[in-house]
Amino acid sequence: MKNKALDLSRHEAREYHTNYSGIFFKAKKVLLDKKSKFQRIEIIENQFFGKVLFLDGLVQTTEKDEFFYHEMLVHPALACHPHPARVLIIGGGDGGALREALKHPVEKVWLVEIDQEVIRACEQHFPWLEEALADSRAELAIADGFDFIQQTRDRFDVIIVDSSDPVGPSAVLHARNFYQKLKKVLKPDGIIVAQAGSQLLHLEEHGQKYRFLKKMFEHTLFYFGPVPTYPMGTWCYNFLSDVIDPREVKKLRIPEGLKYYNQEIHAAAFSRPQFFLEKLK
Amino acid sequence: MKNKALDLSRHEAREYHTNYSGIFFKAKKVLLDKKSKFQRIEIIENQFFGKVLFLDGLVQTTEKDEFFYHEMLVHPALACHPHPARVLIIGGGDGGALREALKHPVEKVWLVEIDQEVIRACEQHFPWLEEALADSRAELAIADGFDFIQQTRDRFDVIIVDSSDPVGPSAVLHARNFYQKLKKVLKPDGIIVAQAGSQLLHLEEHGQKYRFLKKMFEHTLFYFGPVPTYPMGTWCYNFLSDVIDPREVKKLRIPEGLKYYNQEIHAAAFSRPQFFLEKLK
Repeated sequence: MKNKALDLSRHEAREYHTNYSGIFFKAKKVLLDKKSKFQRIEIIENQFFGKVLFLDGLVQTTEKDEFFYHEMLVHPALACHPHPARVLIIGGGDGGALREALKHPVEKVWLVEIDQEVIRACEQHFPWLEEALADSRAELAIADGFDFIQQTRDRFDVIIVDSSDPVGPSAVLHARNFYQKLKKVLKPDGIIVAQAGSQLLHLEEHGQKYRFLKKMFEHTLFYFGPVPTYPMGTWCYNFLSDVIDPREVKKLRIPEGLKYYNQEIHAAAFSRPQFFLEKLK
Repeated sequence: MKNKALDLSRHEAREYHTNYSGIFFKAKKVLLDKKSKFQRIEIIENQFFGKVLFLDGLVQTTEKDEFFYHEMLVHPALACHPHPARVLIIGGGDGGALREALKHPVEKVWLVEIDQEVIRACEQHFPWLEEALADSRAELAIADGFDFIQQTRDRFDVIIVDSSDPVGPSAVLHARNFYQKLKKVLKPDGIIVAQAGSQLLHLEEHGQKYRFLKKMFEHTLFYFGPVPTYPMGTWCYNFLSDVIDPREVKKLRIPEGLKYYNQEIHAAAFSRPQFFLEKLK
């Protein structure tokens, strides 16, 4: 898929979720079409979803439904951690995860994005990014996430991996080696959360990942939430900690004004469908 | 949308979920294209989803993902009811709900489908329907659901409304008058469940329906589950009973061999997103 551009000849953008099916968006306008060192960056305007960001032809963020993804990526960990002072976000150049993390009593949040051009595009088109970066607690590093964690001397309370999917170029961010290095920069009582891909489409990858993660962390959990524009509509996240079991936390610290996440949803999100349970055996 | 046919000129079928976006399926073959007295019935073969049934251009059932919908429509009620001897299904001509209901210790299940041609099409293309109808406990009635409940002298332990969505011609099956009549044929300790539409797209309708249903039933609940090929990927169901609160049932009777539904999922399904809770106020 490297540098694959959208075919906008019919005034619509489409993403194949399988070889034989997918999603389409009418493109009222094409707001950006740029090739960076790393990927093709495109933003279209859709009359239902608002602005839609594609990287190498795959939907990353829409104004209408990004809250499902960003709230579920960020809040289960941050609402559980008693003192999430230092937070690291790897990826997430669209700024949605940063915006949500800053709703908690954090001291500092690092946003480590590999592609400067993604930051530029999103600063221009998604106003929350500029606002989040202006927060004195936010620190932007343009760097490869893997390099950053090998070089940093900081230690983090919560690490949020907002990578691409567990297939293709981002597969490295879902591998054992990456998690071993992540654990070295995590405080002993810290939490790692990671986007893990489509519940249904990446089922084999979830099983493989579970088998090595459960040897590394006392609590190795998957949790789930809807994202209407992501493949198959239900998304999967990892929750990893040696100390905190998110199903046992009595007092969640939940920010005001969220759209999706709440106490009921937190409890429910860790429930696994039968087909998923069978893949973890 | 009445009698709207699929545009298969590009060898693909598409459904608009909003005026500006939707889902597409490559059509390896068109297996059926028929106009009945009530609607356009089309079945295509897709290499990922298998056979896909469209009524008036809207996806009803795919072989690959129908289990999400049918398990969540049927099992929360039937697993909770201590003696679900007599079950009524309104709609559901594809037979998925009937197949799931027959997994419980029922004595008789009525399938009331308005369109004989839907039954014919599904008997030919979805083998589970023929098998379910061959079960001596199953009884098929070709009738309008509204007429059936006005004329029947039977009383039911569980009623399952497997209708189309709460907009357009099926809106009548989501109205107060219909539920008043349904309640008259429900045993006092019975349960009604109904498909209620897309969690996100039909939010206004959910709020309206909740306001009249909560005056009619002691327990008026919404619950949720994914359906990858339905609009926005997360589906909404009603659970209505004067006696049984599904969140309090200690011993669920869950059939063997299900793919989605289990004890964990039952408990989680009644959890409501923040935006949904705010619509019920």
